[in-house]
Amino acid sequence: MSQLLQPIHNIPEICAQHGITDVVLSPGSRSAPLTIAFARHPELRVRVVPDERAAAFIGLGLAQAQRRPVALVCTSGTAGLNYAPAVAEAFFQQIPLVVFTADRPPEWIDQLDGQTIRQPNLYGRHAKAAVELPVDFTHADARWQATRLVNEAINLSQEFPAGPVQVNVPLREPFYPKAGEEIQYEQVKISREVAGALQLPAAELDVLRRQLRQTPRVLVVAGQHPHDEPLLLALRRFGAAYQAPVVGDLIANVHQPVGPDYDAARTAPLGRQDVFMVVPEPGLREALRPDLLITYGQSLISKALKNYLREYPATQHWHVRPAGPVADTFRSLTRIIRMEPAAFFEAILSGNKVYEDAVPGSIPGVATAGSSSSVAADAVMSSTLVPNEQRTTNNEKQTRLAWQGPGSARAEAAAPKDAFTTPWQRANGWATDFVREFVQQPAQPFNEFTAIYRTLQRVPAGAALHLANSMAVRYANILGLPTGSTAEVFANRGTSGIDGCNSTAVGAALAHPARPVVLLTGDVAFFYDRNAFWHNYPTPNLRVILINNHAGGIFRLIEGPRQQPELEEFFETRQALTAANTAQDFGLRYFTAATFAELDKVLPAFFAPSSKGNAAVLEITTDSATNAAFFEQYRAAVRTAFS
Amino acid sequence: MSQLLQPIHNIPEICAQHGITDVVLSPGSRSAPLTIAFARHPELRVRVVPDERAAAFIGLGLAQAQRRPVALVCTSGTAGLNYAPAVAEAFFQQIPLVVFTADRPPEWIDQLDGQTIRQPNLYGRHAKAAVELPVDFTHADARWQATRLVNEAINLSQEFPAGPVQVNVPLREPFYPKAGEEIQYEQVKISREVAGALQLPAAELDVLRRQLRQTPRVLVVAGQHPHDEPLLLALRRFGAAYQAPVVGDLIANVHQPVGPDYDAARTAPLGRQDVFMVVPEPGLREALRPDLLITYGQSLISKALKNYLREYPATQHWHVRPAGPVADTFRSLTRIIRMEPAAFFEAILSGNKVYEDAVPGSIPGVATAGSSSSVAADAVMSSTLVPNEQRTTNNEKQTRLAWQGPGSARAEAAAPKDAFTTPWQRANGWATDFVREFVQQPAQPFNEFTAIYRTLQRVPAGAALHLANSMAVRYANILGLPTGSTAEVFANRGTSGIDGCNSTAVGAALAHPARPVVLLTGDVAFFYDRNAFWHNYPTPNLRVILINNHAGGIFRLIEGPRQQPELEEFFETRQALTAANTAQDFGLRYFTAATFAELDKVLPAFFAPSSKGNAAVLEITTDSATNAAFFEQYRAAVRTAFS
Repeated sequence: MSQLLQPIHNIPEICAQHGITDVVLSPGSRSAPLTIAFARHPELRVRVVPDERAAAFIGLGLAQAQRRPVALVCTSGTAGLNYAPAVAEAFFQQIPLVVFTADRPPEWIDQLDGQTIRQPNLYGRHAKAAVELPVDFTHADARWQATRLVNEAINLSQEFPAGPVQVNVPLREPFYPKAGEEIQYEQVKISREVAGALQLPAAELDVLRRQLRQTPRVLVVAGQHPHDEPLLLALRRFGAAYQAPVVGDLIANVHQPVGPDYDAARTAPLGRQDVFMVVPEPGLREALRPDLLITYGQSLISKALKNYLREYPATQHWHVRPAGPVADTFRSLTRIIRMEPAAFFEAILSGNKVYEDAVPGSIPGVATAGSSSSVAADAVMSSTLVPNEQRTTNNEKQTRLAWQGPGSARAEAAAPKDAFTTPWQRANGWATDFVREFVQQPAQPFNEFTAIYRTLQRVPAGAALHLANSMAVRYANILGLPTGSTAEVFANRGTSGIDGCNSTAVGAALAHPARPVVLLTGDVAFFYDRNAFWHNYPTPNLRVILINNHAGGIFRLIEGPRQQPELEEFFETRQALTAANTAQDFGLRYFTAATFAELDKVLPAFFAPSSKGNAAVLEITTDSATNAAFFEQYRAAVRTAFS
Repeated sequence: MSQLLQPIHNIPEICAQHGITDVVLSPGSRSAPLTIAFARHPELRVRVVPDERAAAFIGLGLAQAQRRPVALVCTSGTAGLNYAPAVAEAFFQQIPLVVFTADRPPEWIDQLDGQTIRQPNLYGRHAKAAVELPVDFTHADARWQATRLVNEAINLSQEFPAGPVQVNVPLREPFYPKAGEEIQYEQVKISREVAGALQLPAAELDVLRRQLRQTPRVLVVAGQHPHDEPLLLALRRFGAAYQAPVVGDLIANVHQPVGPDYDAARTAPLGRQDVFMVVPEPGLREALRPDLLITYGQSLISKALKNYLREYPATQHWHVRPAGPVADTFRSLTRIIRMEPAAFFEAILSGNKVYEDAVPGSIPGVATAGSSSSVAADAVMSSTLVPNEQRTTNNEKQTRLAWQGPGSARAEAAAPKDAFTTPWQRANGWATDFVREFVQQPAQPFNEFTAIYRTLQRVPAGAALHLANSMAVRYANILGLPTGSTAEVFANRGTSGIDGCNSTAVGAALAHPARPVVLLTGDVAFFYDRNAFWHNYPTPNLRVILINNHAGGIFRLIEGPRQQPELEEFFETRQALTAANTAQDFGLRYFTAATFAELDKVLPAFFAPSSKGNAAVLEITTDSATNAAFFEQYRAAVRTAFS
């Protein structure tokens, strides 16, 4: 029997030799040969998760955290369909998953045999590829084909842009080893793929550098991207050299300090665009307008920034992406640059006289003194934005920003370059102060806006911060992390679904048991994906902050639905659950807070490291209507900040 | 704004005019125009279920119970992918679903906009069709097209074989009505489809009748099929006329009494094949062998019957199915008959001299006296099987069946026809007695086999009995319902998944509040689909019998996995949950039993009707190893019944 299934038994060995370390499998009978071969492999950590929807998102979280492919194994039938939401998220978030779906043999498809669906190419356009293993290994060519296809699938999952690949595995009976029978892992052929480093031709780089020098207003916008220190260093140096502001949402992971002694004030990327980009002050909006927009990475959270860049489109928009289709998110795309972003920014800088000779700033390798180059010579700090704090009459503490010209920013196209960095930095600084002071106003009712702010201030250093869709990630992007936070931020923004936010965080916690993993989530996303905790693997490093407003509160925050009579029943979905029973069911340590005093008291204990026990949940109970009213106050304050 | 979306607002009106009454929607923003238009429609019952996986199975349960299409509505992104398991089940179980998936407009697909995936044809080969509504309704042709496509989708979902149809609905902003704005339902064009009744040509029917008369051993095997009284009457009459045994699993719904005074002993369909078909007595197996097999409906549960019919293939196998692909489940298919099963059996009978003149039996319309016809003349009740109960020496009470020839059943091919009914009826009668006595043996430990038997004896008259995959449905098919039970049996055997068993039963309970709905399920299926109860619609008529062995106990019952060292961790998935917290979370009335005495005591209260409150759960706690040992005793007893 084993003999016949030897190529199946070899699959885990191929996975291990390709560097895969973690496997998530869901029980089944048809998948037994895969289950047994994976479970017995000495180098693989195999975890069992019964709900395939959760299993696949846990695998996604593992792969995202480990930055290498994770193997998923499921049985035939709808098991594989329950993977579909995570597979789509992995596809759009570029996370490598190798999805082994056991199947009935082809002759029994559509013959009314149990647990049989049409599995080949199960994920359609949401997988990078789908391969079909042969069902009969008697011919040597079939054995070679099976090995080759598994090698190809693992390689393809990692090739940029990374993503999910399905390996469908039809299996005939009998497929269980005999009692006590051992299975062997053969010497397997490994086809190893080594990625090359993309370089632009020197002449092309020169053209780009010339354009950069000739363009006064260069803006870099970072899309979703994992933390990448070389990239952050390159961005700081590029930003300083060209006086180009670098803007990124939390999920862009550009907020982390980098390098030993960079000049934070001059080059730190900006993240408060969700606040200052909605200020309807025409002078400010004109002052922020780029001529050349450079982007890399995936999606933005900030709808305000997206809308702004569509309303004020750059003349040129370059997108840096090594391969694959490129989105024209702002309707202004003019150039696609096929390089790694870090390599691109370094390449621009390395051939740059400015950079080699003398660029202001204290980034290592960047001279701080001279102003001899053409760009550095432009560096004049013109103060165009002056924050000016004042109290409003209605007893709300508001931070106001006095906009002191220039009257027509467009007329300044030929102005010194750092004139462009300055309004961005000032706007960002104002927004940071504004939010901090807004959440500190006295006598406010307990509300999620402020509760999340206070909680985010406490996120442990070096944590992986997972932001659930849709409310949590939006609040967090408005409120921001404290300056200097070293947290790395994750969110399922490939498809922005609420369906696997818990599971993804669980996967992250399993990946790095010594790293704190913090999930900020709302009640709908939390209860939707409760089965994330339904398995036997404790995650003592996981902290779940559950903002329970007993509804999809986001619908009360957005303009359209909250005006509808259907709001409560058909949009918010009022629901009465608390996490107490869920916590008890899964042995999660359970904390609650329903006032600011309780919150402040509980946070240190909640965030305290624990190597024992399971994850902790902090349920912060708020009222949906109060939240909406407070958020409306915030919005009004932002809108009137300059009036 | 409304003007632009008028064709979207008309969709619920088209649904209502096609007879759709129930809609299950999950909250979202992109789907708002659909949500609002459906929610405000005066003739539609719209229910909100946040977890789309559960929502779709609830829709499936509603459609299955109501025998008409149900509309599902979800927002863009992975929401629709969470429908996929239910859509696949609906596809293979032939249940009509009209799946409205809101989408971003085509120009924003793959542009890194939120909650955007590739939705056209989202379900691939698991939907009957996928249609794409236009995004711009300014041209009159686009408005006509939208109306036409929705009409087509609803018609197609119902056309045999019924199934799911996706309607993808791209929507541009703005799509919320203004505060207080009313929406209109226009007069809509309805394209109504009326199904014709298929008839075979008279000459063809004559050929079939001749073949039937010439074939001594005709067996009817019913696949999964909803309860259908005309079909049951036709089967009884056909079985009597041709002395053809009719065999069906519980999900075939052939067990219900039909007609006022049919001759139960002679014509009642048989259902204990999972018991007697595994008896390895060659004489019995030969005696049961058909020459002509007639099948209709979908899948069988009984692996024993499937294996038998593959091992002893009929010379001819006719499958009766009005349209669509036909499975060759037993590898013996020779003829496809394109008619409704009831119409086919009636047509055979109505032109049949035998039937018209004199058929034994007391079915209304069937003469009981004469024996003048060629078939009736053959009717000799030959006693070939005589049950003979005796005690085994090892203190197990076993029922033994003395097999008294014929030595070579094949030599009896020309024997009287009723010789063929007799061994089937005797085997079935023996199996019924055997099981009843086996579960009554004294001093047995508490075990799920016997607990399920006792529980099934109490299923209320006229109930919808839902059997979850995989353990519950298999046990129930072995144990059977009491003779004369009027319960209708459902199971998600299209794909045999565990993923939506709770939800399907919830849908059934919502469909007919006055009908008792009983779900028999195991712990893995139950906890997998807990979100079935996460909504605001009580189902006081639902009774959930949860057999909790704290594992996927089925893996301990089947030969292959229970011999593997991976059994507990990688197959069974040991899990510690009880339903107590789940019941508390969702306001379910909670009953428990862990001994036979407790079970007997609790069953009357548990099954007692209640129009108030919510569903009731009876958690029957058993031990997986005890269950396996008891089931092994049962299997051994069956295997040695004739030795």
